[in-house]
Amino acid sequence: MATGSEHTVKAFDQDIGQLRALISQMGGLAEQAIHDALKALQRGDLVLAREVRRKDAQIDALEAEIEKLVVRVIALRAPMADDLREVIAALKIAAVVERIGDYAKNIAKRVPMIHSEGEDRIEAVSILPAMGQLAADMVHDALDAFSARDARNAAEVCARDNALDDFYDSIFRTLVTFMVENPRTISQVAHLLFVAKNLERIGDHATNVAEMVYFAATGQYLADRENGDSSGS
Amino acid sequence: MATGSEHTVKAFDQDIGQLRALISQMGGLAEQAIHDALKALQRGDLVLAREVRRKDAQIDALEAEIEKLVVRVIALRAPMADDLREVIAALKIAAVVERIGDYAKNIAKRVPMIHSEGEDRIEAVSILPAMGQLAADMVHDALDAFSARDARNAAEVCARDNALDDFYDSIFRTLVTFMVENPRTISQVAHLLFVAKNLERIGDHATNVAEMVYFAATGQYLADRENGDSSGS
Repeated sequence: MATGSEHTVKAFDQDIGQLRALISQMGGLAEQAIHDALKALQRGDLVLAREVRRKDAQIDALEAEIEKLVVRVIALRAPMADDLREVIAALKIAAVVERIGDYAKNIAKRVPMIHSEGEDRIEAVSILPAMGQLAADMVHDALDAFSARDARNAAEVCARDNALDDFYDSIFRTLVTFMVENPRTISQVAHLLFVAKNLERIGDHATNVAEMVYFAATGQYLADRENGDSSGS
Repeated sequence: MATGSEHTVKAFDQDIGQLRALISQMGGLAEQAIHDALKALQRGDLVLAREVRRKDAQIDALEAEIEKLVVRVIALRAPMADDLREVIAALKIAAVVERIGDYAKNIAKRVPMIHSEGEDRIEAVSILPAMGQLAADMVHDALDAFSARDARNAAEVCARDNALDDFYDSIFRTLVTFMVENPRTISQVAHLLFVAKNLERIGDHATNVAEMVYFAATGQYLADRENGDSSGS
């Protein structure tokens, strides 16, 4: 027969399981949003771009649901020490995933401005998807590390952020050169600069999640890196 | 004589007071960081720019302190209902102020790239400080509304976000025109585009704080606005 305390422990484990499932669901939507936004950008697909913007509301709604669940779990179960920290970490990770969704939405918003009617196709668009793939993979792997509480994979995601920053710096230079040589396209290419920046920030946030996973699993901080915003450009 | 429950209530009020004081302190530092970053930008003052980057660590440290205090308050006082929501709101507002600090730091990081040695002074720099003042005022007033739990002033801050977005759109067009006419400056002016974007995002975050203050004070959401990221450009 279960004692009262065992009952509470089980109920808490179920709550945590539900929190983790909601975060995985959010992560899946955010990852899909990055892929779709870049597909829309590459093809000039305004319908898909609008779809990405519309679907961001689902990600926001999941964050709100997670927040409500966190408040309920704290109020009902009064978790202590590690359990409480895990609940607070879930709240923070949900907020980060919500921001990743916002960046994907922002990329989608720029699609009509980059592919405006009557404008030439900007060949510089073609250099973005490879960077987008790197960023989306980091999000995917950070959330996998979260599901599996896998510190090693979390550390590996963080290590990839430097490569993404280098990629961004290189794209920044390429786009500036492109603008200098094609002044007519400056307005459109300026939007591409922001797209590249959004992808770089998505990588920062994936790293941020991975750092939290690493800390939760090991109790130690990964070797200090400058917090967020790691690229100078 | 105080009963045990009165004792707990007073202790909780003290904790909340401490949380609010820490957030005000963070807000003051973030506001100062915006002012200093823009001053550094306008004067090409690389020493001041470095100072802004260095001081961001204080803002991050305050956020970490707030998070620890929140965990302690929840664990020790087991706040219920409104009290618990207030503690969670403090955690969220601290995270937003931390991001505002990051945007100011990012502006400071761009100062050396905008004022690179041997380059002409970019006259377009002169249009940024007025926008920066608007953004910094929004941060200031949002945190004042938070301290005073003043729903009316909070709503007024939110109303100003549209003006800031319009300002940003106008600066975006001005900077693009400037690049077209001065292709030699494209790389530097691209950094100014990001500075303007950072200021626009600071306004979004100030609005975000004001919305939370409004909700906490009235229990109602302000009329729906598209969440964050309100400018298309």
